[in-house]
Amino acid sequence: MRKTDDITHVAVLGSTGSIGQNTLEIISHFKDRFKVVGLSAGKNTKRLSHQIKTYKPDIVSLREKKDADELKDMKWDHPMEITWGPEGAEKVAGFDKNDVIISAITGINGLRPTLAAVKTGKRLGLANKESMVAAGALINQESSRSGAEVIPVDSEHSGVFQLLHKENLREVNKVILTASGGPFFQLDPKELENQSVESALNHPRWSMGKKITIDSATLMNKGLELIEAKWLFHLPPEKLGVLIHPQSIVHSLVEMRDGSVLAQLSRTDMKIPIQLALTYPHRRESLLPSLDLSKVKALDFFEVDFKKFPLLEMALKALSREQSFSIALNASNEAAVHSFLKKDIRFSDIWEVVIEVVEETEERSVNNIEDILKIDQETRKRTWEKIRKRN
Amino acid sequence: MRKTDDITHVAVLGSTGSIGQNTLEIISHFKDRFKVVGLSAGKNTKRLSHQIKTYKPDIVSLREKKDADELKDMKWDHPMEITWGPEGAEKVAGFDKNDVIISAITGINGLRPTLAAVKTGKRLGLANKESMVAAGALINQESSRSGAEVIPVDSEHSGVFQLLHKENLREVNKVILTASGGPFFQLDPKELENQSVESALNHPRWSMGKKITIDSATLMNKGLELIEAKWLFHLPPEKLGVLIHPQSIVHSLVEMRDGSVLAQLSRTDMKIPIQLALTYPHRRESLLPSLDLSKVKALDFFEVDFKKFPLLEMALKALSREQSFSIALNASNEAAVHSFLKKDIRFSDIWEVVIEVVEETEERSVNNIEDILKIDQETRKRTWEKIRKRN
Repeated sequence: MRKTDDITHVAVLGSTGSIGQNTLEIISHFKDRFKVVGLSAGKNTKRLSHQIKTYKPDIVSLREKKDADELKDMKWDHPMEITWGPEGAEKVAGFDKNDVIISAITGINGLRPTLAAVKTGKRLGLANKESMVAAGALINQESSRSGAEVIPVDSEHSGVFQLLHKENLREVNKVILTASGGPFFQLDPKELENQSVESALNHPRWSMGKKITIDSATLMNKGLELIEAKWLFHLPPEKLGVLIHPQSIVHSLVEMRDGSVLAQLSRTDMKIPIQLALTYPHRRESLLPSLDLSKVKALDFFEVDFKKFPLLEMALKALSREQSFSIALNASNEAAVHSFLKKDIRFSDIWEVVIEVVEETEERSVNNIEDILKIDQETRKRTWEKIRKRN
Repeated sequence: MRKTDDITHVAVLGSTGSIGQNTLEIISHFKDRFKVVGLSAGKNTKRLSHQIKTYKPDIVSLREKKDADELKDMKWDHPMEITWGPEGAEKVAGFDKNDVIISAITGINGLRPTLAAVKTGKRLGLANKESMVAAGALINQESSRSGAEVIPVDSEHSGVFQLLHKENLREVNKVILTASGGPFFQLDPKELENQSVESALNHPRWSMGKKITIDSATLMNKGLELIEAKWLFHLPPEKLGVLIHPQSIVHSLVEMRDGSVLAQLSRTDMKIPIQLALTYPHRRESLLPSLDLSKVKALDFFEVDFKKFPLLEMALKALSREQSFSIALNASNEAAVHSFLKKDIRFSDIWEVVIEVVEETEERSVNNIEDILKIDQETRKRTWEKIRKRN
């Protein structure tokens, strides 16, 4: 990681979302070490304006031109470039002053800016898992070309990253991501079908965005994380596994071939992996109180019942299929979850529709972003059609 | 670690004990990588003879001259030096062909051979915790002089070793050793007093020698391990802690200052740390089936009630006292436990006697082995006297 004047310059893509806000909070805490130089947001002009006042970035971007124009009309007491659209986010990602780019735009929209960040050869803190799911091979190719350092920004992968960084991959038998199991993992499969939006959003451990909370209830989130782990850590399918762990304290486990299992634990707070992505290879004092296992008392572990969570099973399949399979799985799931959130379909329709759509997708390898986005768009369309026909 | 012909030459001190036998079992499994060159034992001539036939070492030693003479009178089909006594064990430890010395003699008797091993500058696999407790400063001084690599051979310290080996000590907030709690940790203090030898020997998790099993029931074993950890990992007292964890699956935890906690888990089998001490920095396939957390189901953690385990509290004190304090604590405890095993004293007499004796010991720093052994002997004598007077 390149540093200027001992201050690390950070761009935050998706600055008004949950990861973005947490990133800025950490930067505020370590003012003498980090400086925000770029921010990119969606439609939350109000929150972005507030962030601009606090952090005085050199460049900002919004999704819509009208929002960017609104910002331009306001009075700012420092010079700043204001831009918009996908190209705007890419411009923030590729901004020359960046030392670290935190990529925290949700969904497939994060792909282009993430790729732009990887191409700079700087450090990328990756919270946008869809990038790796849809374009893992491409991102790995670009990062080895540019020398970019990709550090995962979510609890499970950050845990694996910490555990693996000093181990020899040949000596690793298995990397296990834990899943809280969401609100339904103890229900009968029959009881799952008609779960309401409200009950699916009632996650027992993490407070997150709506899309990812639904993905946690179907365990699709863990499926996407497995695919992400495959690309991040160069792991073959047989070395990846999942365990249900309702307390979400142990985030991941690495089983070494000599019988030792290494684990990473922490409070369920995104600030921990975000901070590590900023400070790695160093670790700075946490803003949080330390984890007291005698207060947590028990850590429980259960096998996953794949029959109950067919989307997780599909994600496991995706590990040994062509990239198009993962792209379609992710796109169709994103479309179906949004329909569920709008109450257009039942809970169990999510996986029924997604599995049908993915199985109808022609499998092929994909080597450029245009093809990736084309498969993504086509899959969404077919998902919407299927949902329309159902209703 | 120096290697000859790609074969690592191993000496096992205490070869007929539990750790010794496990070490030889691993070596048998990895015949193409390890060769036994030296064995030292106590009085078990029969088992040692058997080991000699199997492993054909170049040098062996027994505690007593008469046992060595008995061995010399037997017919061996390979040339071998047979020696005896403390000097014999030291000779095995310092044998020129050794690449690795596993020090697994129990009690303070392991100190001289351990020091002899450290002085060779080879790798030392240290299972004799009393060496570090009584002579930590001296061993560290000798190992930095000779360049010897000290790798701990017990589950807790091997876990810490694996977790710390590439972390920056300044970034470590706390190293926590887990204790199973032994058979009594859920009893009332009042119920502890009159526990029988039989019930104290009934350890719920580990099958070990008698002395260490009693030390597990008083939690003194964990106390000795804390003192050992202080010297092995150069940790100040405030960075050391203990948690009760009845399942003994998590052996140790390292809390980093950024809020991440790294943990090492495995089956409760000594072969795992022994194997690592032999193969480090590499890891070889385990002889054991892998750990399945979904079968273990729950990992529980409890705070230690120090009032119930006053010897552990004494060990915590020892962390910030002169070495003489640790020497006396260990020696007096060893004497008192043997009296308890002979049913001369009650269970609670162990700590009552030990605490009295240690508090009467004049505190001072100790820099040579003669002084260490003198304090050790004097303390034992005072302990026996106190026990005699009580009865």
